This record gives sequence, C-alpha cells and structure tokens, in this order.
Amino acid sequence: MRIVIDAMGSDRAPAVEVEGAMQAVEEFGYDLILVGDEGIVNDELKKQGQAVRGKISVVHAPEHIEMNEPAALSVRRKRKSSIVMGLEMLKREEADAFVSAGNTGAVVCAATLSLRLLPGIERPGIAICIPTLNGTSVIIDVGANIDPKPIHLLQYGIMADAYSRYILHKSNPTVGLLNVGEEEGKGTDFIKECHTMISESKLNFIGNIEGRDIYAGTADIILCDGFVGNVILKVSESVVDTILKLLKQEIRASVIATLGAALASTAFGELKKKMDYSEYGGAPLLGVDGRCIISHGSSSPKAIKNAIRVAGEFMTRGVNKHIVEEIESY
Amino acid sequence: MRIVIDAMGSDRAPAVEVEGAMQAVEEFGYDLILVGDEGIVNDELKKQGQAVRGKISVVHAPEHIEMNEPAALSVRRKRKSSIVMGLEMLKREEADAFVSAGNTGAVVCAATLSLRLLPGIERPGIAICIPTLNGTSVIIDVGANIDPKPIHLLQYGIMADAYSRYILHKSNPTVGLLNVGEEEGKGTDFIKECHTMISESKLNFIGNIEGRDIYAGTADIILCDGFVGNVILKVSESVVDTILKLLKQEIRASVIATLGAALASTAFGELKKKMDYSEYGGAPLLGVDGRCIISHGSSSPKAIKNAIRVAGEFMTRGVNKHIVEEIESY
Repeated sequence: MRIVIDAMGSDRAPAVEVEGAMQAVEEFGYDLILVGDEGIVNDELKKQGQAVRGKISVVHAPEHIEMNEPAALSVRRKRKSSIVMGLEMLKREEADAFVSAGNTGAVVCAATLSLRLLPGIERPGIAICIPTLNGTSVIIDVGANIDPKPIHLLQYGIMADAYSRYILHKSNPTVGLLNVGEEEGKGTDFIKECHTMISESKLNFIGNIEGRDIYAGTADIILCDGFVGNVILKVSESVVDTILKLLKQEIRASVIATLGAALASTAFGELKKKMDYSEYGGAPLLGVDGRCIISHGSSSPKAIKNAIRVAGEFMTRGVNKHIVEEIESY
Repeated sequence: MRIVIDAMGSDRAPAVEVEGAMQAVEEFGYDLILVGDEGIVNDELKKQGQAVRGKISVVHAPEHIEMNEPAALSVRRKRKSSIVMGLEMLKREEADAFVSAGNTGAVVCAATLSLRLLPGIERPGIAICIPTLNGTSVIIDVGANIDPKPIHLLQYGIMADAYSRYILHKSNPTVGLLNVGEEEGKGTDFIKECHTMISESKLNFIGNIEGRDIYAGTADIILCDGFVGNVILKVSESVVDTILKLLKQEIRASVIATLGAALASTAFGELKKKMDYSEYGGAPLLGVDGRCIISHGSSSPKAIKNAIRVAGEFMTRGVNKHIVEEIESY
C-alpha cells in the first residue's frame, strides 16, 4: 500500500502531516509519500526524528495552492503544486491513494481532472462521517457540488451505500433526504424530484428527514446538496465550539463550579472524544476513479493518521468496485 | 394593546398558551384574546385559576390545523381554524398582533392571504434571534420561502435591519450573506446575484459569511434562503440536544463525575439560559402588513409570554412603518 500525502495542506502544515504520517507508518505499516516543499518537509522530518524514515519518502512540489485560492484557476495554473502532483502520481499508478487537508475545492477539481470519474458517475461528492446518538452516519455531499441535479443525489446515495456497507460495516443502511419537513411533497422542486427518483431506486430509502434528525441518527445516510451540506458541517462545529466556550466562561465565574468541572472532566473528555471528527479520519471524495481522502484544514496529527487509515481501507475493501457494480445495475 | 393568541398551536396546547398568556397579562398588562376550542380553552383557564380572567377573552374556533397538514390546502379549507380566524381578526382591526406556536407554513400562508404584504415587499420572511458569542444575531429566512429570488434576500436584509435597529437596539447592524466560503465569487449563481444586489444596497454589508460564523456572531444579520435557514435552525437545536444527552450519559457513568456535575450545575444552568431560545420569544414574520409572531411548537409558557412581549414591542416601536420607509427609499 502506497499512500500519497499532501504535506502542505493543513493550517499547520507540514508539522501535522509529518506527525500523522509517522503515526500511520507505525500503526499500519503503509509506505507513505509526502508531497510538498522538499526542504521544509525534510526539515520537519528531521525535527520529529527519523525512526520511520525508511517507510516515508518525499517528493518535491515547488508550488502550493493556498486555502482560499479559486479552485479551478489554481489547479490549472499550479501544475507543480502538492495537490496536482500528488493526484497525478495516482493517475500514473505510482500510488494507491491520496490524502489532503488543503483547499477542498482544488482537491475536488484536481481529482476530477486527473483521476476522472468512475464509469456511470456524473459528479463526485464528499461524504463525511458524523457521530450521532445512534452511532455513525454519513452526510453526502458536504461541498464538492453546490448546485447538483437530482440524479447526482441518487448517485450520492448509491455511493454512500457502498461506503457504509464496506467501510462502516452496515448491512442495509437507511437513506434519508434532507428536507424542511418529513411529509412527502415538501420542499423545493429540486428536492421533490430527488424524492421521486430515490423512491424508485433500490436504496433503503426512509424518505424526507429534517435537520433535527441528523444527529439523532434517524438515517445512516443523509443526502443533501453540497451547499446545504457545507453549511451544516460548519454550523455544527460552530455550535459545539460555542457551547464549550460558553460553558468555560460560566464555569470560571464560580469557584464551586470550577471544582465541579474538575471532577466532571473525565465526562467532558469522553464526550469530546465522541464528538471528535478527527476519530473518523478524512472524508472520501466518492465518485472519482481513485482513492482521494479530504481532511479538515485544522486537522490534528491523529486526524491525518486516521485519514490515511481510511484511504487504506478504501483500497483493501474495494469500495470503488462495489460502486461501479451497483451503478451498472441501474 | 390587544394581542390574539392561537390557543391550539403548540405541542402542549392549550395549557402552555394559557399559562404564557396569564404571565403576559401580569407582566405587560395587555388585553389578550385566546382563539381556539372554547370548551377546552375555558376548562384550561379555570384549571389554571381565573385571577387575570378580565384581561383574557376567548374566541371560539371550531376547527384546528394540525402540525403536519399541508399549509395552503388547510388554510383554504379550514376557514374556522384558530390560525385563520385569529389572523382575520387582525385584518378587521379587532386586534393589533397575532402569536402562534402552530403549523408554521399555515401561519405564513394565512398571514400573507389575510394581512397582505407591506407595500413594495415581494415575499415575507421569518426572522429568528439566536445567541452568539457576540450577543444576539438575526437569521432570516428560516422557512417562509424555500425558493427565493435575490431581490427577496435583499428585502430580508432591509427588514431585518429595521428589526435589529428598533427591537434589538443595534445602531448600524452588519449584514452577512451565508455562503460556502468568504471570498467574493463563491457560491451558486443565486448567491452570486444576491451578493451583487446587496453590495449595491445601503445595508452595512460585510460580504459572505460561512456556517462557522453564525454562532461566532460575525454578523448581526445572516441572510439565507428559507430551506437553508430551516435546516440550520433544526441542526443547531439537535447539536445542542445531542451534546447535553451525551454529557448526561457520560456523567452518569461515573460517581465522581456525577458529584462534579452537581457542583457545576450552576454553570450548566446559566449556559442553558444563554442558549435558551424561549428567552427571545417568537420569530416575527417580517413583510406582512400586520404583526405576526411565530413560536416553536415545543414552546414553554415563558416562550409564549416572550412572544407576546415581542408582538407588543413590534407594535409600539413601529417596525413596519420603518420597513416601508426604507423600502420606499430604494
């Protein structure tokens, strides 16, 4: 297993990527290729110790796509960036999977151009795992395609179904369509068309679900357009942050409460772990003819390590093969 | 001040509405009219004591629109429902404002039909106050209009600006457009058109904001379509519920943590108060030629009382007059 890691992607690159890669080598034994500014990456590797150096190689990418650069333009212009070069290595079959915590739009664009789409797939979608009261669910799409057609949502459902079966080990995952109400006939024309199309599919479709159902775990797979999915994800993170900040403010305001909080801290720790996105690793870009995992810009080393784990599982469990078989049956 | 309350709206109607109304009479001295099934409402009034009975009258509405009935159809068919009858009282100027915790779609539809829109306004929008790290912000629209045009979002901005100035006492409220990224040029064609139109307005426009900015309080007013707004609201509530549930589970799992939680409970209480939507009362339906406040189906008596307070403030501070003046200046 050879996995390429964009060493320049995250907010704290390349330190986080290097540390995550070193953890992944120890834990999974994969061969890893860090793509990025050779000097900077090698310095970081030296700084963090070279124990696992044999399993980690570095490929020099002189250019870098910044977080806020326009996706399509930067991918066209910066052919020597870590994102474009990393994905081109997959295309040339020099590696099996790609992980990046960089500019999501650029990764989606470069992956679609380099790897192309799986046969029958019209658009890629980013699938993300979220913790719910009922285990783990998958939301797709969280931002690859902000203006999709109904057929794209149906295909997201089919792809997330394969992902849920072969990576999350769910036997017959339920699929919900995110809407403003549960009743059939609710929503925009787009959503109504999606509802009709998905109803007629082989998916285990439970119909419309609402925003409140997401974290309740009502559905194993939540389908929405990339605009809504992106907003949901960022709002959810922000609600969690806000609650923790407010709680800290309140607790500091009282001595007894501070003592209480100290005693309750194990519970907080366990909770934080349950809510911790980094446990889930990255989000696969489903639909491209390759294995591309996108991580959060603020990823920790653990999140990078888990993204590498997911990339490996994606390969060994043949998720793309299952997607193609399923799409062909339609 | 005469305010009509839909006594049959909330999940625990009419008990919650009656209790909220009694609190409002005591606190604000308004004259209140409860519209609903006369027998049931009178029984509830008796049960809760008749001390303030003189300020509360009951109008009989033999029909009731259920939470999940299709909005337009139910409003057309159930002319004798509490929602339609209550709003018709406003139209006939028998009352100054209307409060309902019932079927939101039906309230929007009946209010638009009965009260009509303010001159120049093309669509109504539901504005909701949310707690942020930076005080209170307003999101509009959270579900009146799930498929708006750019001009509607501009008008939402103008209406929420008046609301923020005259109800929330903000002198020059900032306006953000909810998008998938901060950079200009991001988003769907719809969002790009909104951006151009709002940029050219007199609003204090700070440009695109992202999901994570909402609870950070980056903007005083957050503009989005009713589909996205509805999802945001329900997701946010669900994240809060999920965190509290997980925290309770974790805390029960350990004796020391339980003790700690007991000591920290004041902090939790203060936090809950800050996050408590019921403190803000209901959400005004902005744009209709009247005063219509929509409350959550799971409202507490306090939430109903505060919705009645907001209805009164809406009247005394002449919000609609300010909206019309502003719209006319365009």
